[in-house]
Amino acid sequence: MSELETTIDDRFPAYRSALFELLAQPSISATGDGMEQCAELLLSMLDGYPFDRVERIETSRYSLVYAERTVDESAPTVAFYGHYDVQPPGERDEWESPAFEPTVRDGSIYARGAGDNKGQFLAHAFALDALTGADADPAVNVKLLVEGGEESGSLGLIEYLRGEPTELADADLVYVADGPMHASRRPTIIYGNRGIVSYQLDLETANSDLHSGNFGGPTPNAANELVEVLSSMFDGDEVTVDGFSEDVEISAADRELVGTIPVDEDALKSELGIDEFATDDPYYERLLLRPTMTVSGLSSGYQGEGKKTIVPHRATAKLDSRLVPNQDPERVLQRITEHVERENPNVEVTKMGSFPPMKTPLDTPASTPLAAALGTVWDEDPVEMPLLGGSLPAAYFRSELDVPVLVVPYANPDQGNHSPNEHLDVDCFRNGIETTARFLERVPTEL
Amino acid sequence: MSELETTIDDRFPAYRSALFELLAQPSISATGDGMEQCAELLLSMLDGYPFDRVERIETSRYSLVYAERTVDESAPTVAFYGHYDVQPPGERDEWESPAFEPTVRDGSIYARGAGDNKGQFLAHAFALDALTGADADPAVNVKLLVEGGEESGSLGLIEYLRGEPTELADADLVYVADGPMHASRRPTIIYGNRGIVSYQLDLETANSDLHSGNFGGPTPNAANELVEVLSSMFDGDEVTVDGFSEDVEISAADRELVGTIPVDEDALKSELGIDEFATDDPYYERLLLRPTMTVSGLSSGYQGEGKKTIVPHRATAKLDSRLVPNQDPERVLQRITEHVERENPNVEVTKMGSFPPMKTPLDTPASTPLAAALGTVWDEDPVEMPLLGGSLPAAYFRSELDVPVLVVPYANPDQGNHSPNEHLDVDCFRNGIETTARFLERVPTEL
Repeated sequence: MSELETTIDDRFPAYRSALFELLAQPSISATGDGMEQCAELLLSMLDGYPFDRVERIETSRYSLVYAERTVDESAPTVAFYGHYDVQPPGERDEWESPAFEPTVRDGSIYARGAGDNKGQFLAHAFALDALTGADADPAVNVKLLVEGGEESGSLGLIEYLRGEPTELADADLVYVADGPMHASRRPTIIYGNRGIVSYQLDLETANSDLHSGNFGGPTPNAANELVEVLSSMFDGDEVTVDGFSEDVEISAADRELVGTIPVDEDALKSELGIDEFATDDPYYERLLLRPTMTVSGLSSGYQGEGKKTIVPHRATAKLDSRLVPNQDPERVLQRITEHVERENPNVEVTKMGSFPPMKTPLDTPASTPLAAALGTVWDEDPVEMPLLGGSLPAAYFRSELDVPVLVVPYANPDQGNHSPNEHLDVDCFRNGIETTARFLERVPTEL
Repeated sequence: MSELETTIDDRFPAYRSALFELLAQPSISATGDGMEQCAELLLSMLDGYPFDRVERIETSRYSLVYAERTVDESAPTVAFYGHYDVQPPGERDEWESPAFEPTVRDGSIYARGAGDNKGQFLAHAFALDALTGADADPAVNVKLLVEGGEESGSLGLIEYLRGEPTELADADLVYVADGPMHASRRPTIIYGNRGIVSYQLDLETANSDLHSGNFGGPTPNAANELVEVLSSMFDGDEVTVDGFSEDVEISAADRELVGTIPVDEDALKSELGIDEFATDDPYYERLLLRPTMTVSGLSSGYQGEGKKTIVPHRATAKLDSRLVPNQDPERVLQRITEHVERENPNVEVTKMGSFPPMKTPLDTPASTPLAAALGTVWDEDPVEMPLLGGSLPAAYFRSELDVPVLVVPYANPDQGNHSPNEHLDVDCFRNGIETTARFLERVPTEL
């Protein structure tokens, strides 16, 4: 057993106690509950680890908590990102043990925030501690930025990154441990994420719903018209809006990589209750490399039991489009708006939100030592994913700071983040600490 | 002034008192409130007019009230139809005077049921009374059938007509005074009505809504798929379901007749808040002679404020198709079901209700004396409409008894049936009485 492993194992009870202390402190950004106390606790906790400087960074929303250890001004800098806020716990009786009383059962730590994200970002601090304890101080500078609003839109983080983020000015890499590992429980590296643009289509054709006997035929019907506009925007799995996909590029390397991601399609269908997938394309190619046009809500006329013989005067559709690298949310929405305007100038398009896609090159220098670190700790090659299907605030580090971002989830696939009985397997927590440490040992001094 | 007119004017205060007495008696079929008392009151009231026989006909729902005067077994028989039930009054404070306290203001009788339908069917009884009083007994037999469930689906009437309606076995014509006169306030003859078939489309593609980031793309989307099925069913104003319109026939006579119905399209657009009509076809041709496919309700996924990034697993559309003569609701629904099955076999089609179209030939023998009677009373030619856009229970007389049906609304265009402050103009009430009387004077002894 290496000196590093011995140190981690010796100090593991202390690391677990520190995690439990942080988990016992509620920190719900949606309501503000416990946020200030959690930031204070985290600041004093990080002071106990081998950082040179621990600071609070104010934003107009929740504070950021920042810690750094500088080994050499000329060495590269790895910035770790995490978040100390958690999802609301939900109903007490859906939890086997209370959400803010961390409890170990069957080798897992049960608590709100265990995996998402307190157990994951603390692993970085513990890794630095273990490395120092094993006399293996890393050759790179280490920074840790923990935000308080990830579950509520990361507004404070975005404000910080769009301001003058001097603390991160010299970062050469942003490293994010968040989310669950791949369903196969193999270690996982994710190089980016799809973006999103959400929008709403509204149509009003008269000043009230009309009787379908007295008026049906000559009078316009908002539901019928909106259905026709929507159907002009896609055809099965194809988006038919002119220019929608103009910036989409699928590289041979990405296509090859997604082909290596394991997927049990039959198990997935059975779990989700799906007869057939929407496309014959390979599952992960469709999920990760191509944009979407998803109607997420439809509403018009009478929706109760039975029937009501009306011609609806209003109809609304909510949509989101997941975007892949090179697509710009604003440009995509512009194309959609132009299309809708051509189809039916009375339909109003309203932007509901957006998030850029993010992509770190597969051959970024940090990927080789990271894959080696994961292989050593888990005794298995990592699953490498060119993108996540969903969106991550980590994308803002790439878009605002223009640094490579790697996402390395440490939590078990069934962590249940955002659900009752969230839990982080004890071995995942331990291996997460070792992964950060082994990565810091291996990361090259040229990044 | 004729003997008939003098008699009507002499007895008018008594007719008005009788109407007020009936209006003061609530009779709400939706709740059952006052229904039995109203039937009793009506039976005793009709006993005071020159009928030979007044009877209650039981159904499994509300009773029918029946009265007859037979002048000659070999003479033709005109059956008048009406309904003694009314719509619920709604909020008290929306009424200027209480709904069941009939009040005259500005030449109108305000009360729930004034026009819909107590003032209209009583006119037939008063007409018989006035004719007899003027020594002008009609040359035809007169029957009056008043149902108690018209505002609640006419289930008792339908049950009666589908049983052995011996009282109406020898009817040669069904005459219905109901609804408002044409908006121009010209007297109005309506020869039929559109039918309707209502149906619902349901699609379920998974066992729950899915996260659009984690699953959007490869997984099926119920909202997108239902939009595509719906859009395959119509194209603008055209219904594109194979066979949907196979039984539609528009005769030259009908087309010519609808061209004579006055319509102020600009006033209508402005009143309804409509930019453009859905079609360039003449308004009444589109409203009365052609079937429709109306999406009356749409529902899927998230419909609240803002957005929710989901792939909906369920989608529902409610539709109704207004049908024109020769179309059979069951056959039309069969065509729609076949179409949907071809487009997407996972979409379930459920019938929600139907009502047959009805059409009395324009050259039915009673139409000439009716037009003459209306012209005499109102000093204006009637507006003749081949159909109503909506549906009438009178259609069942045609479909079950195979007799001609004429609809002759006596109420003012702004009667506000089903709304607060329902009112029947006093002159409409009086002219209704005279119209029935003059029709009975003129109706040929060969029908």
